[in-house]
Amino acid sequence: MSAHVFDQAIALTATGDGLYAGATSPAYANMVGPFGGITAATMLNAVMLHPSLLGEPLSLTVNYCAALADGAFEVSAQPVRTNRSTQHWVVLVTQAGASGEAETVATATVVTAARRETWSVDDEPMPAVRRPDEVKPYTVPSPVEWIRRYEMRPIEGAIPRTWDGTGSDSRSRLWMREAVPRALDLCGLAALADVFFPRIWLRRATYVPAGTVSMTVYFHAGSAQLAEVGHGWVLGQARAQAFRNGFFDQTALLWSEAGHLLCSSHQVVYYKE
Amino acid sequence: MSAHVFDQAIALTATGDGLYAGATSPAYANMVGPFGGITAATMLNAVMLHPSLLGEPLSLTVNYCAALADGAFEVSAQPVRTNRSTQHWVVLVTQAGASGEAETVATATVVTAARRETWSVDDEPMPAVRRPDEVKPYTVPSPVEWIRRYEMRPIEGAIPRTWDGTGSDSRSRLWMREAVPRALDLCGLAALADVFFPRIWLRRATYVPAGTVSMTVYFHAGSAQLAEVGHGWVLGQARAQAFRNGFFDQTALLWSEAGHLLCSSHQVVYYKE
Repeated sequence: MSAHVFDQAIALTATGDGLYAGATSPAYANMVGPFGGITAATMLNAVMLHPSLLGEPLSLTVNYCAALADGAFEVSAQPVRTNRSTQHWVVLVTQAGASGEAETVATATVVTAARRETWSVDDEPMPAVRRPDEVKPYTVPSPVEWIRRYEMRPIEGAIPRTWDGTGSDSRSRLWMREAVPRALDLCGLAALADVFFPRIWLRRATYVPAGTVSMTVYFHAGSAQLAEVGHGWVLGQARAQAFRNGFFDQTALLWSEAGHLLCSSHQVVYYKE
Repeated sequence: MSAHVFDQAIALTATGDGLYAGATSPAYANMVGPFGGITAATMLNAVMLHPSLLGEPLSLTVNYCAALADGAFEVSAQPVRTNRSTQHWVVLVTQAGASGEAETVATATVVTAARRETWSVDDEPMPAVRRPDEVKPYTVPSPVEWIRRYEMRPIEGAIPRTWDGTGSDSRSRLWMREAVPRALDLCGLAALADVFFPRIWLRRATYVPAGTVSMTVYFHAGSAQLAEVGHGWVLGQARAQAFRNGFFDQTALLWSEAGHLLCSSHQVVYYKE
């Protein structure tokens, strides 16, 4: 059985102490470089593969320094502090630049934690929305390859069909899951948190170049809870908070169809004009 | 004229290429170690002081690896990628551990950017609340020193006076500013983003040990806009999104009294029980 396209894309080969070799996947190509979500998932995968890993991901921040060039890259994942129940990681992705020297193309910090059951409650209940089978798939010709990797059913705030400057709201809600069935796991969730198109397109109904600069994911679900989701639908909600002088922030929540908040995610995004 | 207590606390002395010496300030002591906001501000200050700095802070993520011990620490701030208009930093705080070896006590990534004027809009308008002069200061005996560095006037969701388990909401809104006048700047704003007490205390009206693990700040205002705020009041709003198995996330917005969103901030927080 061949691996799922997502697992192929995030695959890494250990080459040293916390060092891994990977390569970009044409299946996740974006306008320039790969889909940010697959880079985030790959960096998280380096931590997941590390023999010293303690617990499971709690927090992930990825900073996109430059578009990855098609081809090989190296990931370094180093645990810089290990406590009794938490562990702190610094992760770097490098590629050979024009001069042949290694250039940093992405940085990340990850916190992993050994969690135990406590008093728990969701303060952001899943909004009451139409169920996935009541929502039509959005069939816009995809300008980029990675979008075909996901099934998306927008409930509100779909990507504009016409760029007529009429936008007034930045909130999207949609059902989403892998196009080719794959059970949700922590790397899959990290990628899913970046599926939302840039809020500036929706808010202005105007196309401008835009790209994520930094993204953070806080994992509320562990691998056991994600396994229960399996290939089920995930409800995503994203909205902007402010657009200011070339950058806006975008905040997202992802729930399982059963209504559990799986993660919250935030990003700051560059936009032109 | 002696420096403001905040500037004394975040003061650093250059000791090498991107290396700085600092020391904890008793004025910002927390229950264990210093107030997280002052550590965030100090790490940001290392970037601000670096001779290679490009632009102003756009994004800051601080990971608290361990409580800082009272006394000296070293900060390393390295620009790992410089583009035309953005720059990516990795920042580490280390202290000599019991064995004398340097131990990492905090990590951070910072993105700085040279910004230019573009189409801009706030999607999170400042809520309609009572003005600062209509709100009484909250006069609870402060259990920790750093709280005395700030004037706080809670509009809703003040820290519970009685821990009776009656909590039902996690949202706080308050006016806040430095207790000793100081014009707001980027380091000051980074610290202010961490002023909110742990949401778990409010949500449960129950005292449990809690501490920030990772905090992110997205700066919407630059230094020029902050200078306009001066020593004015800042409206802060914080709420939780989910409490799950020992960690919750907390999301915050800070507006100037004139109604400009200055920054958004997010954190994931450890809690016991």
